[in-house]
Amino acid sequence: MSFVSHGPVVPTSDAAGVLRPLPADAVRLAPDGLLGGWQARNAEATLPHCVTRLSTEGNLDNLRRVTGDADTEFRGFWFADTDVYKTLEAAFWSGTARDFAADTAALLEKTQDPDGYLNSYYQDPERRAKQWTELHLSHEMYTAGHLIQAAVAAARTTPGDAVAQQVVSVARRFADLLVQRYGQSNETDGHPEIETALAELYRVTGHRPYLDLAARFLDNRGHGVLGEGRFGAPYFQDHQPLRTVDEVTGHVVRQLYLLAGAVDVAVETHDSALLAQTEKLWDSAINGRTYLTGGQGSRHRDEAYGDAYELPPDRAYAETCAAIASFQLGFRLLLATGNVKYADEMERVLYNAIAASTAVDGKAFFYSTPLQRRTGHDGGGENAPGHRLDWYECACCPPNLARLMASLHTYAATADDNGLQLHLYGTGTFAAGPRSLTVETRYPWDGQITVTVTDTPADPWTLSLRVPAWCADVWLTINGTSTPAPARIQNGYLRLNRIWHIGDEVVVALAMPARLVAAHPRVDATRGAAALARGPLIYCLEHADVPAWLGLFEDIELDPESPAAIVFHSNGLAPVTLGAKAVVRAADDVPLYQDLRRVTTKRATTATVTAIPYFLWANREPGPMRVWIPLAAQGE
Amino acid sequence: MSFVSHGPVVPTSDAAGVLRPLPADAVRLAPDGLLGGWQARNAEATLPHCVTRLSTEGNLDNLRRVTGDADTEFRGFWFADTDVYKTLEAAFWSGTARDFAADTAALLEKTQDPDGYLNSYYQDPERRAKQWTELHLSHEMYTAGHLIQAAVAAARTTPGDAVAQQVVSVARRFADLLVQRYGQSNETDGHPEIETALAELYRVTGHRPYLDLAARFLDNRGHGVLGEGRFGAPYFQDHQPLRTVDEVTGHVVRQLYLLAGAVDVAVETHDSALLAQTEKLWDSAINGRTYLTGGQGSRHRDEAYGDAYELPPDRAYAETCAAIASFQLGFRLLLATGNVKYADEMERVLYNAIAASTAVDGKAFFYSTPLQRRTGHDGGGENAPGHRLDWYECACCPPNLARLMASLHTYAATADDNGLQLHLYGTGTFAAGPRSLTVETRYPWDGQITVTVTDTPADPWTLSLRVPAWCADVWLTINGTSTPAPARIQNGYLRLNRIWHIGDEVVVALAMPARLVAAHPRVDATRGAAALARGPLIYCLEHADVPAWLGLFEDIELDPESPAAIVFHSNGLAPVTLGAKAVVRAADDVPLYQDLRRVTTKRATTATVTAIPYFLWANREPGPMRVWIPLAAQGE
Repeated sequence: MSFVSHGPVVPTSDAAGVLRPLPADAVRLAPDGLLGGWQARNAEATLPHCVTRLSTEGNLDNLRRVTGDADTEFRGFWFADTDVYKTLEAAFWSGTARDFAADTAALLEKTQDPDGYLNSYYQDPERRAKQWTELHLSHEMYTAGHLIQAAVAAARTTPGDAVAQQVVSVARRFADLLVQRYGQSNETDGHPEIETALAELYRVTGHRPYLDLAARFLDNRGHGVLGEGRFGAPYFQDHQPLRTVDEVTGHVVRQLYLLAGAVDVAVETHDSALLAQTEKLWDSAINGRTYLTGGQGSRHRDEAYGDAYELPPDRAYAETCAAIASFQLGFRLLLATGNVKYADEMERVLYNAIAASTAVDGKAFFYSTPLQRRTGHDGGGENAPGHRLDWYECACCPPNLARLMASLHTYAATADDNGLQLHLYGTGTFAAGPRSLTVETRYPWDGQITVTVTDTPADPWTLSLRVPAWCADVWLTINGTSTPAPARIQNGYLRLNRIWHIGDEVVVALAMPARLVAAHPRVDATRGAAALARGPLIYCLEHADVPAWLGLFEDIELDPESPAAIVFHSNGLAPVTLGAKAVVRAADDVPLYQDLRRVTTKRATTATVTAIPYFLWANREPGPMRVWIPLAAQGE
Repeated sequence: MSFVSHGPVVPTSDAAGVLRPLPADAVRLAPDGLLGGWQARNAEATLPHCVTRLSTEGNLDNLRRVTGDADTEFRGFWFADTDVYKTLEAAFWSGTARDFAADTAALLEKTQDPDGYLNSYYQDPERRAKQWTELHLSHEMYTAGHLIQAAVAAARTTPGDAVAQQVVSVARRFADLLVQRYGQSNETDGHPEIETALAELYRVTGHRPYLDLAARFLDNRGHGVLGEGRFGAPYFQDHQPLRTVDEVTGHVVRQLYLLAGAVDVAVETHDSALLAQTEKLWDSAINGRTYLTGGQGSRHRDEAYGDAYELPPDRAYAETCAAIASFQLGFRLLLATGNVKYADEMERVLYNAIAASTAVDGKAFFYSTPLQRRTGHDGGGENAPGHRLDWYECACCPPNLARLMASLHTYAATADDNGLQLHLYGTGTFAAGPRSLTVETRYPWDGQITVTVTDTPADPWTLSLRVPAWCADVWLTINGTSTPAPARIQNGYLRLNRIWHIGDEVVVALAMPARLVAAHPRVDATRGAAALARGPLIYCLEHADVPAWLGLFEDIELDPESPAAIVFHSNGLAPVTLGAKAVVRAADDVPLYQDLRRVTTKRATTATVTAIPYFLWANREPGPMRVWIPLAAQGE
């Protein structure tokens, strides 16, 4: 049997779980679909951009200076090595940037200390004495975790390759050092990430101490071992053990990476209580602390969750890395449980918060993905500017996007013993053993998905097609024959069990009317407003589509008498825009506060305004944007 | 002529300006009124509390260690000396804590360097080399400014006293050092405060170089001399010169102290353009960036203004010191222009944001005064806990409250050549030269104000009584005779010009119905909600008044069909509460996002809920609170 490559998140055959990932080389996303197009853009633009920046921003020199091969000052944040590791991981998943990978592998091997330690910040002679002494802030294990994840990518994509073996060796030496040093410790790192990395390294190597250490780190956390720090113990989820806490708290990326590690450990150790706890915490995030775009994180100050229902669109921090972490966590829970809600959330966050983070040219990025920008916005000095930047001083997000997009194909479909499940729809080919398919679709611009069987065993099996939660009507034809769909929907999937033949064609049409979405009445920040959506996409108003004569951008309201938006279909793969009837009342001379009954009725201007997919905003000149649009008072 | 004591903000006789402050000893607020009660509580509880804390928190030891009289480590923030100075200032205004003042004066004199430098942080041997080298963050002039303000209070209250003379000498030596060092410099301090302090010291001493240096510091700012810092140049108002900038920006306390200094310089130098500019910037703060409580500052991250109309009640930072600064700025603009809007704003911020900052016992304080706290609020590690603390690591607010409350009587009334103006209503006595009055009122619990003339010259003069902007109806009787009020209202004041006799009695009744207030339609965060108000007071719902059977606090909505709230009058000076008809629909099983048309109609529970004055919240067990209450959808 020839080598089969794999993507991120591959539970062992002994692990608990309902679904299995497809082999990475059994999936191809066509570059003329949206998903495949993003993946191609990543390989052609984003990943090379990251490789270049690692040189120009000093990340590689930081490593070289440890061995005396660079005489520069240390540059960037103390965890700047992680940008190198995430880019390296992306290179392995994508199979590109091979020279970068080879050079970096050699550099890492040379930089690593004899005992396995590797961290260019703490290998500085002035800081060596501080190694392992300030875990609450050092990110040493977080950094090690990203090294390990690069090694996992190397091992899963090109295990026979010398470069891959070099990276795996470096990572294992560091992991072995961690096992030796922390195998009996009650300490842990201020920034989770090592847990999922060690669990994945266990999956690749079969070396059980890695998994045991991941489990230990999970349980060490939550006992106040990290102190209060600047933002309190909940900031790094150290206030209460993960197994007993009721709600997500604190720094969002920390929380989500921690949960990802918890799922990995839970399925590998058959710890159903731990798995149930991760599901409970996922629910607490999704049901009260997630933006309509799938973004998470309401507070700038500590990049943290807010209280339940605290979801201001303007001050949404919604860090790109948090959206990526949500997607990665969702896939783990999907494999573990098969529950469609996790795939639904993966789709939402991918098409909105994650997609919005990258410019159409693939070379500029949002750190934060707010849902509103006002006229004259002051984002000075924040990680939330009104436009995408080509790099950040803390550049965690761009290479994180690169590694996600490079492996995106591995998240679209899964298999189980009874068949194959399609979760994300993109034109391409998908296979699980002898079962293989082609998918053609203009999704998300159109809800029609055509699946053709290209190989099949003789026995019957089940083709499962996700019916998104936003979809109210589904039409199905099999080999040209219309077939009632609703009766075949089970737990969110259209389940087609039959003896399949090569050439069989399934056409699914998901109804995609424009929708007006409202938030829970407890979400104070969006009361009296609605958002436009269609299919998996959230839409927004952007200044460039609003003619100046209509008035101030902030004075636009939706006409609730005709809330149904017009869908402007487009040809081919061009974005579909929406048109909504708007009412504009100039409010310049309205006082900031006045008697509720002193209603000012002004002559209203009405017009149809164009809404664009949220993920495409800020690709024109900078200006205001909003997802949540006020509803004009009825009867005015 | 015997000595006349004065309060803060006393322009010279050469200054431009419409109104003059009354001498401090010409005003007494009776302790059985609300204003006088606050002032008495301050002298009896808050000021002694601050004095104690200066010892226990290390502030005084920080000074003692400079001379070797304490061998403790430096404690607190690098500007911890300012807590000493503000407390000292409060002691002078109040005429209490004389032992503390004497001890502190001696300590300061002993600690001061021969050249006049005084800053216990930068006098540490390890940090001496850094003196004056990091003005963007050092707060050295900010600290000097508070020393100077304490000296101004000493000079205005007890100039003949040895203790006062000692403090004035110390402050002048430091001020002289500043003049010598920065008289020709283009540098300035990262935190404004020195400008208003130097202008006031000029007013006390007549020494012109102090005023010139204040003016120089104003104009040095705005040319990028402080760098970008962590939050960008607008954070410290250094992005554009004060004279040309269009809007308030950045750190709120910095902005408001800077404007206070600008008014002082403008009136002393007859710089009408600078005065007009401060008025424009005040407008930009009040018309788009001020909370209904008068609090300012929408962002936690940098304690800063947000964009125009960015006014989230839950994340309101609304720092207590910013409210105090707004009050101080308002008084300066009132003196300069006589415009009632400044007095209206002083009243609003005093009775709401400022008053809320202190617990009923006078010994616990809010650093931040938000307008909403949700059930289960997570304020961990923030300067915005759900309850007042008895001290803060950065304890700027408590002693700032102490110095404001100790001088509160000096802000209530003013004089001009034609008479006397009452701006803030409290029981007490007021005099301006031969014109003197007594005021009796239960304000703000009742709108009736009785003014009795207790001394008067023979010539006619004008008694002016402010008619607050919130007041729609006024009744007036003079010596028992009803008199039409509206015709006598000019520019927001009831103007009573006549020949007065001792014993003349004026009774003004300001109508005080409960009001429902709405925010500008561009304020997204409070759309679909209204606030209860009565007189100058904003009201709030607090958990302790909501019976548990009614449901979750966050599910309470106001019934718009009967918006008029019931006023529960009380006897004497007990707070007046309001009752409003509420509708509660349990929303536990409503999804976070759903189709706008999928209206869930649940059986509603209705009840009359009690609202209390906002400033009194958080004096019972901790729990949720809100000022802005959602309005139930009409017709449901």
